[in-house]
Amino acid sequence: MQTKHLVFISAFILLFSSILAAQSSVVQKYDSVAVHIAKEALGSNNSYTMLEDLCTKVGNRISGSPQAAKAVQWAMKRMQDLGFENVHLEPVMVPHWVRGPVEEAYLLLPSGQREKLKITTLGGSIATPAEGITAEIVEVKSFDELRALGDKAKGKIVFFNGVMDPTLLDTFAAYGGAVSQRSAGAVAAAKVGAVAAVVRSMSLTVNDDPHTGTMSYEPGVPQIPAVTISTAAADRLDALLGSDPGARLFIRTSSATLPPVTAHNLMGELTGSEKPDEVIVVSGHIDSWDLSVGAHDDGAGCAQSIEALLLIRELGLKPKRTIRAVLFMDEENGSAGGRDYARSDNRKAERHIAAIESDRGGFLPIGMGVGAKGEAFDRIKAWEPLFQRIGLQWIRPGGGGSDIAPLAESGTMLLDLVPDSQRYFDVHHSGTDTLDKVNPRELQLGANAMALMAYLLAEEGIPR
Amino acid sequence: MQTKHLVFISAFILLFSSILAAQSSVVQKYDSVAVHIAKEALGSNNSYTMLEDLCTKVGNRISGSPQAAKAVQWAMKRMQDLGFENVHLEPVMVPHWVRGPVEEAYLLLPSGQREKLKITTLGGSIATPAEGITAEIVEVKSFDELRALGDKAKGKIVFFNGVMDPTLLDTFAAYGGAVSQRSAGAVAAAKVGAVAAVVRSMSLTVNDDPHTGTMSYEPGVPQIPAVTISTAAADRLDALLGSDPGARLFIRTSSATLPPVTAHNLMGELTGSEKPDEVIVVSGHIDSWDLSVGAHDDGAGCAQSIEALLLIRELGLKPKRTIRAVLFMDEENGSAGGRDYARSDNRKAERHIAAIESDRGGFLPIGMGVGAKGEAFDRIKAWEPLFQRIGLQWIRPGGGGSDIAPLAESGTMLLDLVPDSQRYFDVHHSGTDTLDKVNPRELQLGANAMALMAYLLAEEGIPR
Repeated sequence: MQTKHLVFISAFILLFSSILAAQSSVVQKYDSVAVHIAKEALGSNNSYTMLEDLCTKVGNRISGSPQAAKAVQWAMKRMQDLGFENVHLEPVMVPHWVRGPVEEAYLLLPSGQREKLKITTLGGSIATPAEGITAEIVEVKSFDELRALGDKAKGKIVFFNGVMDPTLLDTFAAYGGAVSQRSAGAVAAAKVGAVAAVVRSMSLTVNDDPHTGTMSYEPGVPQIPAVTISTAAADRLDALLGSDPGARLFIRTSSATLPPVTAHNLMGELTGSEKPDEVIVVSGHIDSWDLSVGAHDDGAGCAQSIEALLLIRELGLKPKRTIRAVLFMDEENGSAGGRDYARSDNRKAERHIAAIESDRGGFLPIGMGVGAKGEAFDRIKAWEPLFQRIGLQWIRPGGGGSDIAPLAESGTMLLDLVPDSQRYFDVHHSGTDTLDKVNPRELQLGANAMALMAYLLAEEGIPR
Repeated sequence: MQTKHLVFISAFILLFSSILAAQSSVVQKYDSVAVHIAKEALGSNNSYTMLEDLCTKVGNRISGSPQAAKAVQWAMKRMQDLGFENVHLEPVMVPHWVRGPVEEAYLLLPSGQREKLKITTLGGSIATPAEGITAEIVEVKSFDELRALGDKAKGKIVFFNGVMDPTLLDTFAAYGGAVSQRSAGAVAAAKVGAVAAVVRSMSLTVNDDPHTGTMSYEPGVPQIPAVTISTAAADRLDALLGSDPGARLFIRTSSATLPPVTAHNLMGELTGSEKPDEVIVVSGHIDSWDLSVGAHDDGAGCAQSIEALLLIRELGLKPKRTIRAVLFMDEENGSAGGRDYARSDNRKAERHIAAIESDRGGFLPIGMGVGAKGEAFDRIKAWEPLFQRIGLQWIRPGGGGSDIAPLAESGTMLLDLVPDSQRYFDVHHSGTDTLDKVNPRELQLGANAMALMAYLLAEEGIPR
């Protein structure tokens, strides 16, 4: 090896050592903060108590509903009582879809037998005619299969039975691979002349709970009703169609889309002591689906966001930059809240450094995804040991979330809390997303991570 | 910097590079195995189906009971039906403690009011006299407080109300810090002349479920009855004693220790193709407490151990060394199974390379603890990327577990599967350790990790 190589190598080692030294000094500087956050919080149960209050006093809170407005009032009072600064609402126009009282379905077997089928209308769907729809069922497991049917789907009810891929470790990837059946199934079915769409619930567990979610229509394509059935019912229907292909289905639903409603995003903050116009957002969404109290989706993120600020304040920390808890409206039914927050005139005098979203359930936090590259990412990655002290495993490239995504337009760094994803789709958008599925300590560990990340960002900033 | 330093540094870099290269070749060699294990298994639900069968067909199975024997028969039939090799039982003498039909307690308030208190007898405790025990209650939160009482505990019932420290991230550490009240409280109380011990349940959640567990007596110290009450009842009793110190307690229990019973460890294996006498153990314990079906403790470990072998075989892998699933008897009531397995004459012709235990619940696996140092540890640590492919986060120093611990006497390397610990003590030893608390995918991910580790050890061995 030539001497110049050795010189180069030793220069590299010196550089690397100095980077390590700089990193370790930041870690040392905040080590006691990390330890205190963990101790204070795990001893407290604050996040869970708050979530319990939301779930029991408000309950379900679909976008546009009076309960959603009540949830915002509940959270505003919380923030005010806790003495957060600049607590206020910002208006958001949101869709107002209602499920209606009637959801009824029967399988009509060629034998003449009738079998009740539990259905749930998908959010955004039109209702069936008052007398219902009766038609033959045709099953597909993909859009390709649907297109291959050609005319054979005409006048029929299309049953989308593609499963979430259970072999994927990341259940969100499995969801991403299947959810277009729910969101776009009705449009695809209508394009081939079908009269309704029935979609297998987006869940990895086979049981009797239907899981709702949004669907949408496309201009110029006839609007047909869309409903979902549980995974167990989907398996049953699949078996039945295999042995008895002539089965028909009767569906009757009563959903309606009412005129849009003025709802609100809610925010409250710890105003920065040195750079109050530079903002770090911690966030969840205050609306939920209407089938349950939305404990994980996303009561958890709301409770964690409020608790993150509370924790920082209770530790006597005075962040240099503003840390703001934002509870977004309408994540589930179009994400108007996220868009309107980013584009509001109120943002013009502010610079949003970073935004953290928690909308993957209040499960054990595994890591934090950071939407940054180069020096900005490296700087935050260097904080990893601090997060490991409070129970997280890693900081990795990632970040984002539907509510904070529009902030990227103005260069905001997006981060997301990444909890264990294995249990999420057991409860997601179903009647079982209830408080008893939340472990108080797991929920709190997420709030702790959000508090620590928000505080570090508020103190240290990030390179532009 | 002198040239000799540069030479030293470059030598170091070369050495480091060659170590990395060797590690990465092992990782490359087994990468497809890791991927296949994950894919096959997450798509299967095998572990959960097996656990469900054990929980529903056998149910609870305390050491020495007919149900425990039935559980062993159930598992033996499973292993035989699956075609495992060398399936057999090895006898173990185990204690035979029975709860008995009567567990009754009342708080007798100075006002004359009587309030029912739900109690559960601790495993190993004697019964009260048939007419029960009635005495004043004295509360302590530590053994120091008890000793400081001196004569004041004489003739009274000691209420141990030390809490598990909620500020510790690792709930097993919190358990370790409090559990001596349960295991040794009765002896300590008897030493100061008390007539019975009542212990706060070992749980981080405040609710109405009592959590049982073992306790023991000491030669020469009077034996007094020991029971546990739920965390909510303990908080209530604490508040009551604060406001109304003269409260007495009536307790009546009917437990008994019957003569020891011959029970069995069960094992079955994939016999090694090249070194059949070198053994890698994967294990759980087949006995449980009697208050529930022991889904997490330790039906999970049993199902995972059987599934680990099944997975390896279904992938068509032929391990060089023997991989043996051992279901130990009596972990909960004295761990006779683990001791007898290690010391059995049958071990004399075998060399146990390593043993992996799963007895921390079937929750999301976070990592694997390895009880090795130096080169042996480094070699296994180098496999970490393979485990990260199947959802684990790390390999770290650790290892052990009460059933495999005696194998250390003959130099066996001990490993333990480390799942998320936050939820474990919600259900541990209580009536709520039921199947619905187990997520099928989390359970399976643990089996996958055990399969991969056992296979790698069987192929690669470890340096002695």
